[in-house]
Amino acid sequence: MTVTQNTKTLEEARHMAEVRKDEFYDYLRLESVSTEHKQIPETVAYVKDLIEQTGGEVKVLDDLGGHPVIYGYFPASSSGNSDRTLLFYNHYDVQPADPLDEWHTEPFEPTVRDNTLYARGVSDNKANFMARLNALSILKESNDGFPCNVKFLLEGEEEIGSPNLGLYIEKYADLFQADACIWEAGSKDKYENYIVSAGMKGIAYFDLEVTTAAIDIHSSIAAIADNPAWRLIHALSSMKNEKNEIVVEGFYDGIAPLSKKDKEAAANQPFKAEEVKAQYGLTGKFITEGTDVTPAEALAYSPTMTVCGFSSGYTGPGIKTVLPKNAKAKLDCRLVPGQNPKHVRDSLRQHLDDHGYGDISLTMVAAEGAQRTSLEDPFIETVVNSAKKVYGDENPVIVSPSMAGTGPSELFEKYLHLPIAGVGAGWAYSGAHAPNENIRLADFYQNIAHMVELIKVFGVEKN
Amino acid sequence: MTVTQNTKTLEEARHMAEVRKDEFYDYLRLESVSTEHKQIPETVAYVKDLIEQTGGEVKVLDDLGGHPVIYGYFPASSSGNSDRTLLFYNHYDVQPADPLDEWHTEPFEPTVRDNTLYARGVSDNKANFMARLNALSILKESNDGFPCNVKFLLEGEEEIGSPNLGLYIEKYADLFQADACIWEAGSKDKYENYIVSAGMKGIAYFDLEVTTAAIDIHSSIAAIADNPAWRLIHALSSMKNEKNEIVVEGFYDGIAPLSKKDKEAAANQPFKAEEVKAQYGLTGKFITEGTDVTPAEALAYSPTMTVCGFSSGYTGPGIKTVLPKNAKAKLDCRLVPGQNPKHVRDSLRQHLDDHGYGDISLTMVAAEGAQRTSLEDPFIETVVNSAKKVYGDENPVIVSPSMAGTGPSELFEKYLHLPIAGVGAGWAYSGAHAPNENIRLADFYQNIAHMVELIKVFGVEKN
Repeated sequence: MTVTQNTKTLEEARHMAEVRKDEFYDYLRLESVSTEHKQIPETVAYVKDLIEQTGGEVKVLDDLGGHPVIYGYFPASSSGNSDRTLLFYNHYDVQPADPLDEWHTEPFEPTVRDNTLYARGVSDNKANFMARLNALSILKESNDGFPCNVKFLLEGEEEIGSPNLGLYIEKYADLFQADACIWEAGSKDKYENYIVSAGMKGIAYFDLEVTTAAIDIHSSIAAIADNPAWRLIHALSSMKNEKNEIVVEGFYDGIAPLSKKDKEAAANQPFKAEEVKAQYGLTGKFITEGTDVTPAEALAYSPTMTVCGFSSGYTGPGIKTVLPKNAKAKLDCRLVPGQNPKHVRDSLRQHLDDHGYGDISLTMVAAEGAQRTSLEDPFIETVVNSAKKVYGDENPVIVSPSMAGTGPSELFEKYLHLPIAGVGAGWAYSGAHAPNENIRLADFYQNIAHMVELIKVFGVEKN
Repeated sequence: MTVTQNTKTLEEARHMAEVRKDEFYDYLRLESVSTEHKQIPETVAYVKDLIEQTGGEVKVLDDLGGHPVIYGYFPASSSGNSDRTLLFYNHYDVQPADPLDEWHTEPFEPTVRDNTLYARGVSDNKANFMARLNALSILKESNDGFPCNVKFLLEGEEEIGSPNLGLYIEKYADLFQADACIWEAGSKDKYENYIVSAGMKGIAYFDLEVTTAAIDIHSSIAAIADNPAWRLIHALSSMKNEKNEIVVEGFYDGIAPLSKKDKEAAANQPFKAEEVKAQYGLTGKFITEGTDVTPAEALAYSPTMTVCGFSSGYTGPGIKTVLPKNAKAKLDCRLVPGQNPKHVRDSLRQHLDDHGYGDISLTMVAAEGAQRTSLEDPFIETVVNSAKKVYGDENPVIVSPSMAGTGPSELFEKYLHLPIAGVGAGWAYSGAHAPNENIRLADFYQNIAHMVELIKVFGVEKN
C-alpha cells in the first residue's frame, strides 16, 4: 500500500516543539531518579501542570503506596468519536545518571549538539510523553479538535520494576479503560527502520546458592567433602542440556504455538546474521543452527535460560588449592506469553528437589510476565499505517513482534484487555540507561507527527 | 612391640638445642623468601657454614640455574657402617610472611612465648634441618661418632614448586645416591600422634577458559548467541558426574590396586568423621558414602578433581541481565602414584575435544607426580621403631600412607630409587604458610632425639 506522506503535519510538529520547548527542557531538568526517590513530588506536580496546560484533566493517585500514578484525560471534541479511547502509557522517572564522568555535558541540563538533544531520560521516556502532549496541542488548535478520547497513565517506578503499578491498574481499571494503548517507548533501528513493537518478553530472574561448608577448605579434603561448585554445575546442567534445550518439566507450560502471521513477522525482521555476529564479536554459530527455529524467531518468540553470572572459590591469578565453601549463580529466564513467572519458579524448585538439589536455594529476584499483542489485531495496522504517513520510504515501518526489553505491559493486558503497540522518538544509539542519552530532534518531530496522524486515524475507526 | 623410651637422648637433644640456639635463630632471621629471591646468597653461605660447623663437607651446586642446591656429606665414622647412607631432604627457602599485620611478633625475629617458637619458616622447614644438624652434633660428640653416612640435599625453590630440582637430581644422582631419604617436614596431628608419612599425592592444576564474544551482551540475545558459562558448565559436567565419578577416559591410567597393607594403614588413621565435619562445618555427607571406599582410604589413595574456582559474568548483588563474554574455571586434580600429570592433561584435552569443547582452553599451571613408599619397605619400620624410642605412649607413632600436601618426592624416587619417609618437629597448629608460624620447643627436642635414634638404628641395619 502506498501512503502519501503528510508534510504539513511534520511542519506543525516542528512548530509545536519549538513553542513548547521550554516546558520540555524544564521537564528534563527534573532529576526524577526513582531508585533514589529524587524530586518525585516536584515531578508529579510538573506533569500535572503539563497535562493541564495541554487542556487535559488530571488525577494524582497515591492511595496504594509507591510513587504516585498520574491519570490524564482529554475527552473527544464534539465533532470527534467519544466511543473510542486511546491510552498512552508513560513514566516520569528516569535511571540514575552515573557514571557521571562519561557524560560530555550535564545529564540534567538538556543540551543540543548536531541537532541531537542530550539529557538523562530524554529517550526513556520524557521525549515520548512530550511528543504525545505536543500532538494533542496540535490537534487542539486544529479545526476538529480531539478526534477521540485520549487518556494517560504515567507511573514513577518503571525504572525500578513497577512494583506497585499492578495494584493501581487493578483498582482503577475503569478509570483507565481504553480501546488500545501506545507504549512508553520505541525507536528506529540501526537501519533507520521505524519500529512498531507488538510485545515484549517477560522475565524470571533467579539467584541460586549452595553452601556445603562453613569455611573454604584445603582442596586435599575434596577426596571426602562435597564441593558446592560441582553441585551447582551439575544442578544447572540438569536444567538445560548441551543442545541448549531447557529440560525443566513445566517450564514450557502454557506457551501457544506460533501462528503463520507470527512466523511471517519474524521473517520480515531486518535481521542480518553476519552483522549481529560482528557487532558482538561472536565466535561460534547461533544456537538455533540445526533446529527448526530461525534466529529471528528465537529472538522474538523463544524463552531462554541464561547463566548471567557464576562465582565460586578462588578466581584470581595463579594457583589456590581451595575447596570452596559455597557457589552462586544468577539465572535469567526470558519468558513468552503463556508462561507465568511463579509457575516457572515452582517448576525450577521442583526440578532441583527431584534431582537431589534440595540444598540449593532458589530466589526469584525479578518477575514480569510476557505480553504480545496479536499481529492480527487491527490496532497494529492502525499504528503502522498512521506511521507510514509520516515516515515514508526513508524509514520503512516494521512490526517487531516482541522487543528485547521487558516491562509491565502484561498488567495492561490483564486488567485493561487492550492491544498495545510501542513507538517512540528514539534511534538505535539513543543510549537509554547509558551516559549521553539522547534523541535526534528530527526523530522527535516525526514522532509528534506520527502521534497526530495516529489519533486522527484512531478517532475515525469503529469499535 | 613395647619400646623403651630413651630419656638420655632427649636430655642430650635439649642440651644441644641450647648450645646451637644462636646459630638456629640467626638462620631464622634470614629472610629467604624464594618467590621474592630474597637473601638467597646469604642463606646459601649460612647453610654451608652450618653444615661445616657440624663437621660435614659441602658442595654448592648452581650450574643448572635457579637458586643453588646444597650438597652436605658426613661420612660414617671408622666404627660406623660406611655401606649405609641416609639422605636428608630440606629446603632453605620460606614462604612470604604476609599478611604482616596478623603476626603478633616480627616474622623474621624468632620469639619464644609459652615454650613455643614463632618465626616464618620455623616449621616449614628450618627447625627440621636444624634438628637434623643437632642430632649429628650429638652423634659426633658420642663415643661412636656417625653410625652411617649421612647426606643432605637442600634446595631453595621448594616454596615455588621446585622448578629446577629435577635437573639437579638427575645430573647429580650419583652424588646424592643413598639408601633411604627423610623428607623435609612432618608433624604431630591434633591428637598428638607423631606422624610418619610414607608419601604424598601429586597435583595437576588447570586453568580452563572459554570466550564466545568480544563483549558482554544484553541477555535478550541469549535466544541466539551461545553462552560461555553454559559451555563451561556442560564441559565440566561431562568430566565428573553427579556421583562424583571422574569420567575422563585415561584419567585413572597407571594406578595400581591397593594392597592389604595399604587398606590396613588407612584403617589405622585416627580419622574421626564427626570431628572432621565439625572442623569445616560440612553440611552434607561424605562423598565416599555409598561407595566401597572409606573416607580415610579416599584421603590417602583417591585421586580428585576439584573445581577450586569458577567465574563468569555478573556476580554482584541484585540483577544484571547480561550474557557473559567468557567463563573461567580452576581445576585441581590430586594424583596418586602411577598417574602422570602430562598424561592427565592430555586426557582432559582429548575429552574436551571429543565432547565438542575444542574452544575451551586448558592450561596446566602446576604439575607434580605422586610418590608413595611401599608400606612393606623396611625403612618405614626403621623410622617408626626409632620414633617409638622417643615418643612413647603419649605420642603414638602412626604411619600416614599419603600426606595432604604435594612436593617433589617423585623426583627422588625417579632418580635415586629410594624409600622416603617424612617426619618433623611440627604440630597440628604450626601454621605453615600462615601468620604466626611456630613450633613447640618440646616437639623440637623430641625430633632431634628421634633423628639421633634413627641414624643409630639405620647405621646398624644391613643393606
